[in-house]
Amino acid sequence: MNTIKGEQLLAQLNWRYATKKFDPARKISPEDWAVLEEALILSPSSYGLQPWTFVVITDREMREKLFPSTWNQRQVLDCSHFVVFAARTKITDEDIDRHVARTAEVRGGTVEALKRFRDSVAGDLVTGTRAAEAHEWAARQAYIALGNFMTSAALLGIDTCPMEGFKPDEYDQILELPGKRLASVVCCAVGYRSAEDKSAGQKKVRFARADVIHIA
Amino acid sequence: MNTIKGEQLLAQLNWRYATKKFDPARKISPEDWAVLEEALILSPSSYGLQPWTFVVITDREMREKLFPSTWNQRQVLDCSHFVVFAARTKITDEDIDRHVARTAEVRGGTVEALKRFRDSVAGDLVTGTRAAEAHEWAARQAYIALGNFMTSAALLGIDTCPMEGFKPDEYDQILELPGKRLASVVCCAVGYRSAEDKSAGQKKVRFARADVIHIA
Repeated sequence: MNTIKGEQLLAQLNWRYATKKFDPARKISPEDWAVLEEALILSPSSYGLQPWTFVVITDREMREKLFPSTWNQRQVLDCSHFVVFAARTKITDEDIDRHVARTAEVRGGTVEALKRFRDSVAGDLVTGTRAAEAHEWAARQAYIALGNFMTSAALLGIDTCPMEGFKPDEYDQILELPGKRLASVVCCAVGYRSAEDKSAGQKKVRFARADVIHIA
Repeated sequence: MNTIKGEQLLAQLNWRYATKKFDPARKISPEDWAVLEEALILSPSSYGLQPWTFVVITDREMREKLFPSTWNQRQVLDCSHFVVFAARTKITDEDIDRHVARTAEVRGGTVEALKRFRDSVAGDLVTGTRAAEAHEWAARQAYIALGNFMTSAALLGIDTCPMEGFKPDEYDQILELPGKRLASVVCCAVGYRSAEDKSAGQKKVRFARADVIHIA
């Protein structure tokens, strides 16, 4: 077990904040970035279906294209790595078959043995009552990945800024997502806070425990 | 800084899995639970608005009420703590004013000085184009909290099982959420895996890196 102490976890969750100004000169090392990518890949999702793609952008030219579609927020340009969380626009049999095939490959076994699981997922998300809202379902899964990602980064001492303030349709065109049955749902700038970021020194604002934790 | 090493993070993310069978005899200590509650409270959300309530259920009788509305999944009964993530059904001026008042209280300052922020959030989620989908927006924020929560628990060596397989309408009635402008969106069973949980030994299934990480 490689567990950590509660104080250590809370220290890092308190250390993190939505970084408004990144240090453009400071980049995440390839070793640290590899860990963050792996953390993203390991994100849990319903049925284990991973209905997402994480688009990682370090290219300057691409960021300049995204900048005006992000209400000119500098984090897009100044952060070390910029991640767009894209979710499936719908769930198809192909998505489920791909997951089932991967399961058989990783665990050893046959696709046939997973047929009951396969049909129950398809009955829910491809042909069932949730089919019409499958993109929203996929978007929620992407937010699990976002939550995992920000906490993982904080534990490594890496700053993040989650961003909903962008124009999804423009992002989708720029990143050529529609042809891949994907749509951008949320972004996250990653890197290191600038010494000039005044937000860094502000106290964290959270409601009192009794206002958000209910005991039933 | 209380940062951890990348190997430690990945070891715990690999250790975690959606626990199918909890050890009913093993409970989370009050100290550990206090850390997990604090981690929940510290979850990031868009605008910092925290449009959620975390309903924590340890009471046996309440769990037995929820059990049939959860397709009789034993995790509800056997886990140590059962958390229902509830999100605002809509966002009102009151929600924003409460957050603004809390910000002034925590950081010192006046509500008046935050008027521009207040109006811009209200213009987005109360009267703006996103008002109609504000519950979905709030639900996505709750999934950030879920992602943060599962990763936090894994780092402490505590097991979780995220659960979408429940009947939200029945949960809402049982937990008396509608009167509070809240609706249940996802659950998480928390505790310790049973030695008999066969899922624990199964290899984790994730798509290959190239299938989920795109470089743009």
